[in-house]
Formats: sequence, C-alpha cells, structure tokens
Amino acid sequence: MEKKIITISREFGSGGRSVGRKVAEKLGIPFYDKELVDQIAVESGFAPKFVEEHGEHSPGSSLFSYAFAPQGVPGVMNGLSTADFLWNIQCSVILQLAEQGGCVIVGRNADYILKDRTDCLHVYIHAEKDFRADRIVRLYGESEKSPEKRLDEKDKRRRVNYQHYTGRTWGQAQNYDACLCTSSLGVEACADIIVSMVENSK
Amino acid sequence: MEKKIITISREFGSGGRSVGRKVAEKLGIPFYDKELVDQIAVESGFAPKFVEEHGEHSPGSSLFSYAFAPQGVPGVMNGLSTADFLWNIQCSVILQLAEQGGCVIVGRNADYILKDRTDCLHVYIHAEKDFRADRIVRLYGESEKSPEKRLDEKDKRRRVNYQHYTGRTWGQAQNYDACLCTSSLGVEACADIIVSMVENSK
Repeated sequence: MEKKIITISREFGSGGRSVGRKVAEKLGIPFYDKELVDQIAVESGFAPKFVEEHGEHSPGSSLFSYAFAPQGVPGVMNGLSTADFLWNIQCSVILQLAEQGGCVIVGRNADYILKDRTDCLHVYIHAEKDFRADRIVRLYGESEKSPEKRLDEKDKRRRVNYQHYTGRTWGQAQNYDACLCTSSLGVEACADIIVSMVENSK
Repeated sequence: MEKKIITISREFGSGGRSVGRKVAEKLGIPFYDKELVDQIAVESGFAPKFVEEHGEHSPGSSLFSYAFAPQGVPGVMNGLSTADFLWNIQCSVILQLAEQGGCVIVGRNADYILKDRTDCLHVYIHAEKDFRADRIVRLYGESEKSPEKRLDEKDKRRRVNYQHYTGRTWGQAQNYDACLCTSSLGVEACADIIVSMVENSK
C-alpha cells in the first residue's frame, strides 16, 4: 500500500520538525506544523499561541481545564474541558487534511488519529539528551540555564497528553512504522530514509 | 563514528533474524545468532538447546533458578542462579565478540551489553501480530493452533528478561538507533535501510 501521508512524532529538540520539513520538500507535498495550529485556532476560536501551548500538553490541569472559553464562540464547548474541546477539533482537522492527499504532519498525536488509514507512514524521531539540549539553546533560543529540565518538562507533557488521549505509550516502537535517532543517524539522513520508505511503498 | 557492530533486538516472528542475516551478507561481516548460543554453551557447560531456551527468558522462576548445574563444571556457578550465571557468560561472550571487529549480533540483550561502545548500531525489529503469526506457522513450523498465544508468551519472556537485566523497557524507541516494522516496510527493505545507515556512518 502506497504511503502518502507521513506523521512525525518527536521528542522536543530532536529535530523532528526539520526532518518533516525536509521530507515534505523532497516529496513535494504539503507540510503541516504551525499551519495545523493555525487551522485548529480558526476552528476552535482560540488564539494560535494558546493552541500551540496547550494542544500537546497534559490535560486535566485544574488551572487549564474549563478556564478559557474561546472568544466569540461562547457555549460551543458543550461542557467539555478546554483540553478535550481542543482534542476534538484537532482530530477533525487532521482527519480532513488527510482526506486532501499526501502530506507531512508533525506532532498532535496524528499517528493515533490516522491509525485506521493504511496509506500512512508513522515515524517517531528521538535523540540523545545532549544533542537536544544543544539544539534548543542554539536554534530555539531557549535559556542555557538547565535546558535538560526544559526537555524533561516538555517530554513529560507530550507523553502524558499522548497516553491520556490514545491509551498508548509514547515512544513505544510498536506504535510506529519506524523510529529514528537523529543524534546517531543525522537529521538529513533521517529525512532520506523516510523518503526511501515512501518511494519503496509505491 | 563508524558503526561496525549491528545489534538486532526483535519481536518473535518479526523476521529480525532474517534481516540480520541479510545485513551481514550485504556487509560481508560475521552473523551471530545460533553461533552465539553455541559459544555460550561451550563456556557455560550447558547444552546449546538449554541455552537457547533459557538465555533470553524470564529469570527467577522457581523451577529454573538453581535447578540445573552445568555438567562437568560443578561448583562454577558460585551461588548464582542458573539465569544469572548464563547472563554473566552471555555478557562476556558478546563483549569478546565485539572486540574482534564488525559483526551482526541477534538478540541476547546485546544492545544493552554493548551500550558503552560508540561503534554500534542498535536496531529493534517488530511487526504486526498477523504478520508474525503467519510467519511462525509458515517458517518455524509452529502449530497453527493459537500462534498468537505463542507470540504473547515468547514476547513476554523476552520483555521480562530484558527488563530484569537492563532496567530498560523492551521496545522503547530511545534504547535503539532505529526501530523498524517489517510488516510495514518489508524484510528486504529493512535490511537495505540498516546497510545504508552503516554506510552513512563511515
């Protein structure tokens, strides 16, 4: 079965987003990362910044749940917590995007949301902590003070969110067609490997 | 750093052994699977069949622990359980093999035993259950009656053994440089991907 849709799950700072962008460029297909956030923002009524901050983070925080109703769309949450409301919209947006044809989708538990499609290649990108710490300081302008702590926090939030909404374990090989370590294999090489997997599926 | 030694951890029936053999053939380096069992048997004094059955299985079973002293080498176990005694010999044999140069090693927690070497590529091979059930019936001559149960038993034993001796989670992506799904990507393609990873590391 031809793999047209590539989902990239990634550890924070692993370069998964860069891998995804390169794959999309090489295959000449759309790349959804920030674009996905914008679309979820439009459909939910939340600000993009809010969606970006909370869409992949732990649900159920007492400060977070129910705390923010989307501006201009009062009453649309139907009693759902903010996290559950965002999750529903996220699922809907990702399912619609997949219907439109080949693309690369980064994050947002897309591997789980699209698990029933047979034309998807699900990839998990991870890396050694040193590599990731260096990367978030150098590329994302994170403070050099304890970037490891920041990595742990972000990883934990993504892991808890994934577990909560999918019932699966984050980073467990069986959930993906391939898991690749960028600090060992290189960002460019990981992109090439994924492209070759897609080409081989044709 | 050039990757000369490839360790293959694998789910039962996933074709990991076939992938490993193909990689060794393509790279022209030794392949250790049954050969490893034979060497552990020689060094331990246990029969190869016994090593094969127990070397990757759950430790600590009351029937298994301390039950069998190796023939001809009384007193060498120094109070260790049979499982721990086998584990020590397994570590020693694998560390020695790695010193001899490039090779492919299948199973036996070699990824953990060789974790401090920087010239290793650690790969985990898995597959969908249907693919594996079909494979063990067709290739290994397993009974067609509930091959899924057999898969669950073997996987559980390997998982418990791995967890016990390494403290790690079996099949967790972060423990490997790459995890590949043979039912999705194909056995031959997985071998080619690993060969390209080795070639790229030079």
